[in-house]
Amino acid sequence: MNDARRGIREEVAPIAVIENVTPRVDGGRFAAKRVVGEEVTVTADGFAHGHEKVACALRWRGPGDNAWSESAMEFLGNDRWRGSFTVDRIGPWQYSVSCWVDHLESWREGFLHRIDPADVRVAARMGAELIAESASLAKGFERDDLTRLAAQLTGEQDPTTLRRFAGDDMLMEVARRHAPRDGATETIAFPLIVERERARFSSWYELFPRSASDKPGAHGTFEDVEERLDEIKAMGFNVVYLPPIHPIGREKRKGRNNVPLAEEGDVGSPWGIGASEGGHTAIHSQLGTLADFKHLVRGAKLRDMEIAMDIAFQVAPDHPWVKAHPSWFRRRPDGSVQFAENPPKKYEDIYPFDFDTPDRQGLWNALRDVVAFWAREGVEMFRVDNPHTKPFAFWEWLIAEIRRDYPRSIFLSEAFTRPRVMHRLAKLGFSQSYTYFTWRVTREELTEYFTELSQEDSREYFRPNCWPNTPDILPYHLHNANPTMFRLRLLLAATLAANYGIYGPPYELMENRPRDPGVSEEYLDSEKYELKHWDRRRAESLTPFITKVNALRNAHAALQSDWSLAFHPVDNGELLCYSKRAGANRILVAANLDPQRTQAGWVTLDMEALGLDEQAAFTVKDELNGESYPWRGKRNFVMLDPVKTPAHVFSIHPA
Amino acid sequence: MNDARRGIREEVAPIAVIENVTPRVDGGRFAAKRVVGEEVTVTADGFAHGHEKVACALRWRGPGDNAWSESAMEFLGNDRWRGSFTVDRIGPWQYSVSCWVDHLESWREGFLHRIDPADVRVAARMGAELIAESASLAKGFERDDLTRLAAQLTGEQDPTTLRRFAGDDMLMEVARRHAPRDGATETIAFPLIVERERARFSSWYELFPRSASDKPGAHGTFEDVEERLDEIKAMGFNVVYLPPIHPIGREKRKGRNNVPLAEEGDVGSPWGIGASEGGHTAIHSQLGTLADFKHLVRGAKLRDMEIAMDIAFQVAPDHPWVKAHPSWFRRRPDGSVQFAENPPKKYEDIYPFDFDTPDRQGLWNALRDVVAFWAREGVEMFRVDNPHTKPFAFWEWLIAEIRRDYPRSIFLSEAFTRPRVMHRLAKLGFSQSYTYFTWRVTREELTEYFTELSQEDSREYFRPNCWPNTPDILPYHLHNANPTMFRLRLLLAATLAANYGIYGPPYELMENRPRDPGVSEEYLDSEKYELKHWDRRRAESLTPFITKVNALRNAHAALQSDWSLAFHPVDNGELLCYSKRAGANRILVAANLDPQRTQAGWVTLDMEALGLDEQAAFTVKDELNGESYPWRGKRNFVMLDPVKTPAHVFSIHPA
Repeated sequence: MNDARRGIREEVAPIAVIENVTPRVDGGRFAAKRVVGEEVTVTADGFAHGHEKVACALRWRGPGDNAWSESAMEFLGNDRWRGSFTVDRIGPWQYSVSCWVDHLESWREGFLHRIDPADVRVAARMGAELIAESASLAKGFERDDLTRLAAQLTGEQDPTTLRRFAGDDMLMEVARRHAPRDGATETIAFPLIVERERARFSSWYELFPRSASDKPGAHGTFEDVEERLDEIKAMGFNVVYLPPIHPIGREKRKGRNNVPLAEEGDVGSPWGIGASEGGHTAIHSQLGTLADFKHLVRGAKLRDMEIAMDIAFQVAPDHPWVKAHPSWFRRRPDGSVQFAENPPKKYEDIYPFDFDTPDRQGLWNALRDVVAFWAREGVEMFRVDNPHTKPFAFWEWLIAEIRRDYPRSIFLSEAFTRPRVMHRLAKLGFSQSYTYFTWRVTREELTEYFTELSQEDSREYFRPNCWPNTPDILPYHLHNANPTMFRLRLLLAATLAANYGIYGPPYELMENRPRDPGVSEEYLDSEKYELKHWDRRRAESLTPFITKVNALRNAHAALQSDWSLAFHPVDNGELLCYSKRAGANRILVAANLDPQRTQAGWVTLDMEALGLDEQAAFTVKDELNGESYPWRGKRNFVMLDPVKTPAHVFSIHPA
Repeated sequence: MNDARRGIREEVAPIAVIENVTPRVDGGRFAAKRVVGEEVTVTADGFAHGHEKVACALRWRGPGDNAWSESAMEFLGNDRWRGSFTVDRIGPWQYSVSCWVDHLESWREGFLHRIDPADVRVAARMGAELIAESASLAKGFERDDLTRLAAQLTGEQDPTTLRRFAGDDMLMEVARRHAPRDGATETIAFPLIVERERARFSSWYELFPRSASDKPGAHGTFEDVEERLDEIKAMGFNVVYLPPIHPIGREKRKGRNNVPLAEEGDVGSPWGIGASEGGHTAIHSQLGTLADFKHLVRGAKLRDMEIAMDIAFQVAPDHPWVKAHPSWFRRRPDGSVQFAENPPKKYEDIYPFDFDTPDRQGLWNALRDVVAFWAREGVEMFRVDNPHTKPFAFWEWLIAEIRRDYPRSIFLSEAFTRPRVMHRLAKLGFSQSYTYFTWRVTREELTEYFTELSQEDSREYFRPNCWPNTPDILPYHLHNANPTMFRLRLLLAATLAANYGIYGPPYELMENRPRDPGVSEEYLDSEKYELKHWDRRRAESLTPFITKVNALRNAHAALQSDWSLAFHPVDNGELLCYSKRAGANRILVAANLDPQRTQAGWVTLDMEALGLDEQAAFTVKDELNGESYPWRGKRNFVMLDPVKTPAHVFSIHPA
């Protein structure tokens, strides 16, 4: 070894180490998510070599803050530390952890164990040196107090008195606060996106405005939708989501039940966006004007509701951009524009954009401007259609761009695709994500999936939004299903997930007819291709049940967030039992997954998850029917007759 | 929004995404570890948006390689990919994963699903364009073949023939190989440290050379140790580890049983390093000369064994450096050098270094040079004493420095401290680490701890080395323990861990007398403070048993690595059953943890872990006593009488 040629670096490496910071998404590449008012709890391993004690601090800053706030972290044992801060406003936050050698505490701990008087005296002088150092960095009376303490530790001879000096917790805390942070290390600034509360708790009602008229056969308008807002609010929803409201393409328009060519009078799919009169910033003339739309948006806001708009980045063949920007579309070798396809299926009525176009700047900016246009008109929630078919980098850029100017914007990702892709989209900035709930039916499926959603690390960035149905999906278990099944699926979505939604009118009316039973999940006579008249006053409507369930969601904080979810074993596989908690508010659901038969069984409650003693006596009140039962301890009996109710939704009241 | 002011970046972001690469230690900050000859399996998520297929490649290079090697990764489903490469030499390696959009395969998959003849013809021309692009990047006959294929796809009209062209797997593979990698992304180069096999499989025998003489009372020498090598080799060990061999301080030397002051003739602790005649590069004169030591090192190598040296970075008060480099030591306020202490305990015979000294360069380089000195003399294994009391940055720097010139160097971390600290040291570069095995006794403790060691992510960097005893530790369960307990603990260490060691002579002789029974784990009359004469020819020696166990380790590949460890349930809590596998070589251990009573029970074998069918018939042969039993299926009975044996060590032979 040529020792002469080599040497250690001049600069001193940090002594302290920080590992395993949580929350942390892909090492800090992506932001964790919270909503306003939440406490952010940060944990980390912080340690140094040898016997020296360390101290850790949590630092954070919110949007617009130049300075960082800081608080001491609490030691949890085994080199782990915890701190927290509350986020009080929307926007991008940051946090970091720092760790340094706490010479003062290390000294004090050793000092208080010393016995030999001479040893105590020498060690007291070592402490005096440390405290004098703190004094030199302090000001005013703190400086005076520390200077006096240092002198006392140097001058005093009596070991007991010296130990008493070192035992002054308050003064030692002052000394630690002013001590230099030797060997300090600090993490990167981890990103955190704070949104408004509706990002965590929302109840969506989807309706086609064109079917909103009370008159059968008449084309609905924004005015009709506005007239329905009070009913929808009374049902307990707070988001009204409209499929695209733009002109619908006429070229290659699909007919009823998705037949290849429309007949005269067929209204076409609202997702076939754009015709000669306009594209993504135009409004379908039969729905009304921009002024009408803005009136609807304001009308929703007055009711503490809001309108969610559909963002579907694709065009009909007669969308004005096809001619104006030919380079935004890929061509086939025969010169025709490349339509959407999934061989052998062809969607000739839909042209996807070529996001790799040489005019990438033009296209991406134009799409960003579409969202900005509607945000400027007051829309604050966007349900994004098929985001998984567009580049990831596009969404990360677009959402950040919109949020910069419209920080209240909430984005829902409609991506029913592979798990990794759905998770990536959530990481990129989507506030909420569609989930596989739509197809999770058995106790095992529901338990496993919702445990993943609510307990795994991905909850830091992936906020589930659960839908029992959508205009595209009448899931197989709802094909010709009975009312109990409809009640059950709504109740599961609404109580397992703080964010949920229904494709409303057909769900209220328990529309259960598939186009191809057992083969496809398309509705028969799907509203995607025709005007519908939903007779919501029918006797067998699910509206009263939905109203009751949403009222529970709105009344019980436990149902307004996801992380407290816990499952409780039942000795009958058709019964699913779970709970949610928010402080003293506890909801326990026992659901009968069998829509045909009465099921009964013994529940073994996870009393710790419920915050109850093992032997506690308590009252459970079924909030659906008002009945109360006295329970004691963890073993309790439930029996559910599907004709009467799909579930108990108990509130828990300790005796 | 001021649209005019903003626009997307000019450069095109990558389309493909890579996540969750394994192995990966702290995001690539630290190296994973392997030994020569092992296959490195790398997995990753690789995907893009939409329906486009991606391809992934694994790249790697070894020490001295300028170019990267590359191989295609295999698709495992659910966006996960796997590749592997074999490491054939010692040193720092790197690997990375790349992922890109596979336009050709995406095209081909869609193409083969097309039905409509006109559609097939248009789509064939799209494929022709892609293949022509590959042709333009290919050379020679490959270029010719691809050019012809492109022409065929353009010119041919018959859909069946076109499909046949696209179905030519070999030619399509050539086309893919030359295709441009659109939207490619690549990970960082992840570090990988490859060591020699002994880093993974080693059997350590610790002895004090000063007690190696056959003559009672005589001070042992390196020559005595060399004479013992054949016996130690016959016992099956391959590493002989010597406590420090340097001059021992006389100032404040501790006496027998660690009494504060030595009496005339007390030899002192070898860890009290340094006296007037020299320090860390000098040799205690009674042991011999440097030439004698080198002779011993060579003697070990000739026997395919090696000498491991103790690196203890601390000094006795009369170590030459105390006078020569006063700035390397901290002073107490009374001007004396700060000795080691753990209040109220004082170790006045030991001075720690001040690693933060203003002469940091001088101290750190000097310590590095100590290791380099012995490496130059042929030592290739270093057992580092108390590394956790020195800065982490120091070890990362020192180990890298030594490895650069002496890449065969193996470092064992003797850090019986907090888990995070032990893991950090392993990440920094230590080849092997002491473990808590020494104190893990019950079935639950052993199962949990060895599952963690062998199955968790930390196995990528943390290689356990298990010791039933050390000169510092006669664990409580060995206080006055019977021979069965000694056999049991050795057998557990030797079969649960591929790296293990014993503090040899007292273990062979089952020395079980503590200095303070139940209070301290110090040996009575510890060899740390006195010469011992170990009468290894005593009838009750454990030597034959140790020899047998080591012979099994050396004969069975299954026992030479750790990751295959699997535990098998037994219905008797005193029985512990586990297995290891290396290909067809399978070892199954059933141990009786109760050294007093016969225990029996039914084992439920994890047949998958053993690579056996659920109903397989097989023979188990107890390699300790040579007896064989026919077993069938997973439920089997075992009964163990501790007087006869602490365990069955079965080899498994499928019928």
